[in-house]
Amino acid sequence: MDSLNKFVQQDQFARHIGIEMLHYGKGTAKARMEIGNHHRNSAGMVHGGAIFSLADAVFSIASNSHGTLAVAINVSISFFKATTKGTLFAEAEEVSFNPKLATYLITVTDDAGNKIALFQGTVYRKKDSIADIVK
Amino acid sequence: MDSLNKFVQQDQFARHIGIEMLHYGKGTAKARMEIGNHHRNSAGMVHGGAIFSLADAVFSIASNSHGTLAVAINVSISFFKATTKGTLFAEAEEVSFNPKLATYLITVTDDAGNKIALFQGTVYRKKDSIADIVK
Amino acid sequence: MDSLNKFVQQDQFARHIGIEMLHYGKGTAKARMEIGNHHRNSAGMVHGGAIFSLADAVFSIASNSHGTLAVAINVSISFFKATTKGTLFAEAEEVSFNPKLATYLITVTDDAGNKIALFQGTVYRKKDSIADIVK
Amino acid sequence: MDSLNKFVQQDQFARHIGIEMLHYGKGTAKARMEIGNHHRNSAGMVHGGAIFSLADAVFSIASNSHGTLAVAINVSISFFKATTKGTLFAEAEEVSFNPKLATYLITVTDDAGNKIALFQGTVYRKKDSIADIVK
Repeated sequence: MDSLNKFVQQDQFARHIGIEMLHYGKGTAKARMEIGNHHRNSAGMVHGGAIFSLADAVFSIASNSHGTLAVAINVSISFFKATTKGTLFAEAEEVSFNPKLATYLITVTDDAGNKIALFQGTVYRKKDSIADIVK
Repeated sequence: MDSLNKFVQQDQFARHIGIEMLHYGKGTAKARMEIGNHHRNSAGMVHGGAIFSLADAVFSIASNSHGTLAVAINVSISFFKATTKGTLFAEAEEVSFNPKLATYLITVTDDAGNKIALFQGTVYRKKDSIADIVK
Repeated sequence: MDSLNKFVQQDQFARHIGIEMLHYGKGTAKARMEIGNHHRNSAGMVHGGAIFSLADAVFSIASNSHGTLAVAINVSISFFKATTKGTLFAEAEEVSFNPKLATYLITVTDDAGNKIALFQGTVYRKKDSIADIVK
Repeated sequence: MDSLNKFVQQDQFARHIGIEMLHYGKGTAKARMEIGNHHRNSAGMVHGGAIFSLADAVFSIASNSHGTLAVAINVSISFFKATTKGTLFAEAEEVSFNPKLATYLITVTDDAGNKIALFQGTVYRKKDSIADIVK
């Protein structure tokens, strides 16, 4: 779990856009992102890229939580509701897990509990240990 | 086109992560992103969220280029190749265009011309004019 | 509900490939498909098209259950496990519902309860009443 | 190529729904499907499952054309236009090809050349030879 902690801390893009990992464990993770001006798109709403990135950060931690490197190969995301302020949350559920492939469902909600987006992602699981990567 | 120029400039998230729009017109757009440390994920590679965001910025401009507000409803992205340095490019092609819905294919390449990702996105076209939004 | 019953019966493709609707109601539906030789692909396993079609039939009924015509605009499906015999089941859950757009998650399982596929689909909701369509 | 010919002929689901493979080669394939009553959905249009299956048959042949077994792991499809009669065509293009993973883009058109759907699919490439499978 020490390696996973370091792995979480080393996500520079997540830090750059203001994602905070709340908790994580085998096959799961939850994060939050407080909406700021730097998350807005041309129409003043939270950018699809920011919503995706929040879900993707959670996807990365959940899929790497087993200790071997997992790389994203396909993701689909549906956007349900535009949002402009407050805090967004993303939480991952492990839907399928095999030696080579695993699939996760990540739900993004706002602080009123409204569903903002649904993200379905598949990783390819490599042989590298994340303990070696975070050294 | 003046409205579209303003629309491009008002994308604060794109600016925050270092996306530069190169050119755009009816149904198309192309952008670049020079890879920096703030784009890296826990394994030291460019974060899926950063690659998605580059493609999404181009998707937003191409789909709003017709002058009425277009909001993303579904996106699928396939990641082909990990990347760690240099510059990434994304370019949009309009695949289908109807009064209410339109679909775009965005190819992300590196500076050696390798395909990094393929992004397929659909927007819902609202009635609002982007000229009113950028005022 | 009479219109919805007729709507279910009029799905000729579902009948052609052996899909049986088990139950349905507002925003939900469940169906089964007994695997036969005509469902096999070149490698002797159930064809991805057959698995998709089972999920799609359930998606169609769940999304049309509100009485106005819903047409599929985007679907993503992840396949988890190859299957060769027995019965497959698909069940829909309504994830998001707006006047114009709605999204459903359909889980496909085998008769041992293994997850076979996960299908995420979005419809565009038209103004036509399904009561008029089934006349 | 003899193995691939047998592989094409052994797709029982494709035959059951009336898909005819027109030509195929390394990384590519093209098929047609003449629309009949058994392809219709509850609203009298060609079923999403039938359109997907046509694209999926082409995806299967293109991805197995290299001689080793390829199994579908993720597919996204966007539907552009409802169709009720005539003939549909699907053609595959290989977008990315690695030892373990490959991605294909399949365009479905009607006989007037209108785009009906766009299908983006990824396979996992196993070690089995299709020559052994078709024996």
